[in-house]
Amino acid sequence: MSDAPQQVPAPAARRGGVSRRGLFGLAGAGVAVAGLGAAAGVMAAGEQPAPVADTSAPVAFRGQHQAGIVTPAQDRMHFVAFDVTTRDRADLVRLLRDWTAAAERMTAGKEAAEGGAVGGPRDAPPADTGEALDLPASALTLTIGFGASLFDDRFGLAARRPEALIDLPRFPHDDLDPRRSGGDICVQACSNDPQVAVHAIRNLARIGFGKVSVRWSQLGFGRTSATSTTQVTPRNLFGFKDGTNNLKAEDPAALAQHVWVTEGPEWMVGGTYLVARRIRMHIEIWDRTSLVEQEDIVGRAKGSGAPLGQRDEFDAVDPHVRGAGGVPLVADDSHIRLASENLGGARILRRGYNFTDGSDGFGHLDAGLFFVCFNRDSRTQFVPMQRALSTRDRMMEYLEHTGSGHFACPPGLADGGFWGERLFS
Amino acid sequence: MSDAPQQVPAPAARRGGVSRRGLFGLAGAGVAVAGLGAAAGVMAAGEQPAPVADTSAPVAFRGQHQAGIVTPAQDRMHFVAFDVTTRDRADLVRLLRDWTAAAERMTAGKEAAEGGAVGGPRDAPPADTGEALDLPASALTLTIGFGASLFDDRFGLAARRPEALIDLPRFPHDDLDPRRSGGDICVQACSNDPQVAVHAIRNLARIGFGKVSVRWSQLGFGRTSATSTTQVTPRNLFGFKDGTNNLKAEDPAALAQHVWVTEGPEWMVGGTYLVARRIRMHIEIWDRTSLVEQEDIVGRAKGSGAPLGQRDEFDAVDPHVRGAGGVPLVADDSHIRLASENLGGARILRRGYNFTDGSDGFGHLDAGLFFVCFNRDSRTQFVPMQRALSTRDRMMEYLEHTGSGHFACPPGLADGGFWGERLFS
Repeated sequence: MSDAPQQVPAPAARRGGVSRRGLFGLAGAGVAVAGLGAAAGVMAAGEQPAPVADTSAPVAFRGQHQAGIVTPAQDRMHFVAFDVTTRDRADLVRLLRDWTAAAERMTAGKEAAEGGAVGGPRDAPPADTGEALDLPASALTLTIGFGASLFDDRFGLAARRPEALIDLPRFPHDDLDPRRSGGDICVQACSNDPQVAVHAIRNLARIGFGKVSVRWSQLGFGRTSATSTTQVTPRNLFGFKDGTNNLKAEDPAALAQHVWVTEGPEWMVGGTYLVARRIRMHIEIWDRTSLVEQEDIVGRAKGSGAPLGQRDEFDAVDPHVRGAGGVPLVADDSHIRLASENLGGARILRRGYNFTDGSDGFGHLDAGLFFVCFNRDSRTQFVPMQRALSTRDRMMEYLEHTGSGHFACPPGLADGGFWGERLFS
Repeated sequence: MSDAPQQVPAPAARRGGVSRRGLFGLAGAGVAVAGLGAAAGVMAAGEQPAPVADTSAPVAFRGQHQAGIVTPAQDRMHFVAFDVTTRDRADLVRLLRDWTAAAERMTAGKEAAEGGAVGGPRDAPPADTGEALDLPASALTLTIGFGASLFDDRFGLAARRPEALIDLPRFPHDDLDPRRSGGDICVQACSNDPQVAVHAIRNLARIGFGKVSVRWSQLGFGRTSATSTTQVTPRNLFGFKDGTNNLKAEDPAALAQHVWVTEGPEWMVGGTYLVARRIRMHIEIWDRTSLVEQEDIVGRAKGSGAPLGQRDEFDAVDPHVRGAGGVPLVADDSHIRLASENLGGARILRRGYNFTDGSDGFGHLDAGLFFVCFNRDSRTQFVPMQRALSTRDRMMEYLEHTGSGHFACPPGLADGGFWGERLFS
């Protein structure tokens, strides 16, 4: 396996000899939109995104910033947090090199390593697990982050821990499960085909055997955020469009202000901080709430997504608008106001997914929002926002935060660079 | 809510006034394949299926057989098993009527009831939860089955239990979790958009509040079976094409012989028996096995899916073919032979999905195959097949059956009929 810089191939140049499902399997979710052409351009990470023309095309792995942050949010996600089990620093660095090579190949739609599932020595375990053999790149992105626990005394990194990489405070109503929280390293895999996302995480875990173990993982089946103006705002499991005012890839000035790190340790400049929260939604209780109550709690009309008192989803919130009889329409404790105010203008980039993990053993679906956000400094962005929500948001009655993670995501890689290179150099 | 017969609308006629994501959201998984037209015909359940032209179009709810059995397998699944909590037979029958009306509407791409998410009285809980508001029908099918436990003394059904609806025997290596097994009623939701499948199950659970509770549910992210000759055989998490010789919708004679019930209680004629098995796959151990060992265990080439010693996936298995040095290529205890032989020609219709449910707490992904099959009589089809596999298949070393269910799926509905009508009449 080599970690030399690789050219991202055009989608049509993938794995000669192995048929791609997209060529004859029209039932696939990752089917290219005919007429828009199968050879859509490859977008460099961090660049201004082109409209999404082909949901099966690859996204560039290298660039100024990591892909999977402002990349137009793909439809599915597999998120994993690893514990590092080796105590050997060189071993860990070698793994990060190997992971980088595999990640770059997989995001290009190739197998995890040369030889792959069937082309290597027959008496050795295959270098790829094979379940994505017939599938296109499907816009796979792999985004790495380092948790606070990695900066203990095991690897000599204590002095390199960013001040901003705090242990998140305990918020009111938190009910965190340690088996769904924390982790030394996270990888967020997003793709328009869940099998491609799962394949990527599974192969990283395979490559890491003996050096890392899976601490927790979360599958997300439907994106809840638009991160590009080319995307419509999707709905969460409360049935609402949420995050309409999300930061968008097309607004680099706002991203520079709210997402990308410019100070702190040099290895993080150009990076960002990822907060993950597994939020169980008590949908059965919500579903027995009246429409007017639901809209009051959210502060938006359920149908159009417009702020209460406005007509269009993207109309500005007017906290002073009044309805019949002079009653204020947008309550002080509505979600829309608490999530946007009291932050001195600070904003976050949301990138969450709906999840359903079977049932809770008490007759209900275990479902909710796997909230992922990126911000420049969680101390002044995510934390005060979540503190306001967790203490005052009426929606909290229907929510339960069951998992949590905070990770430092380094900047993107130049040619030849590997994940964590600047941290370990 | 009415359970009067409903016309399935053409896809373009859906919910006037609410924009469908398919119209402008190219990033959606359910995007129509341009050029093939958005107005693909509606296929009647049980009819010879047309090639799948539009993965977002509706599938007809009514027909000779239930949809979701020979319907070309959609890409995603949400399966739920309910316990009935009411003790009142009339209450249960009323629920089945209400469910039928909602199911028919949702499979047509409509909201669960008239009024829906935002059109009803504002001071009442909405009649639809709303998270699928902008999504097309996405080939949603809802398939109901009744478990043996429903035929106890609660509802006067003891005498109506089909003999074929046995309690499945305990197989070697079974490690069944009662919280993932059994259930009075199951509903299998399949769709090309997971949000549509989850929305359907969630709304059935909502409608059933106070009468049923969710016993267990399972999300499947990638289909593992082709049920139509228009589909390519997908791969399971071992990286192999499995189920190549599956029964196909285009072979009604074979379906009549192996899937559709012709005797037993009248209410089951035209129905079929569903077996669900949650099969944890120990992928980490598998991934450390050599390619030759993997192929020997499966009996197929990993790349092409061809039986060992053959060239093409669909070539017949030759158990006598020998390789270099005269060594038999297809082992007696290979999966391909055990799954097809020793059954006196009996076959099953497979319709399983890959799953990933986070991690197992021991550093591994909790992933595998949610096996679903349909057969005419599990006593002579699934049970002997599974007995042969569980005692002799070398693949069992990598498998663990953690959940199980056996359900009687009645035939399809004529106009005006409701789920379970013939059972309760």
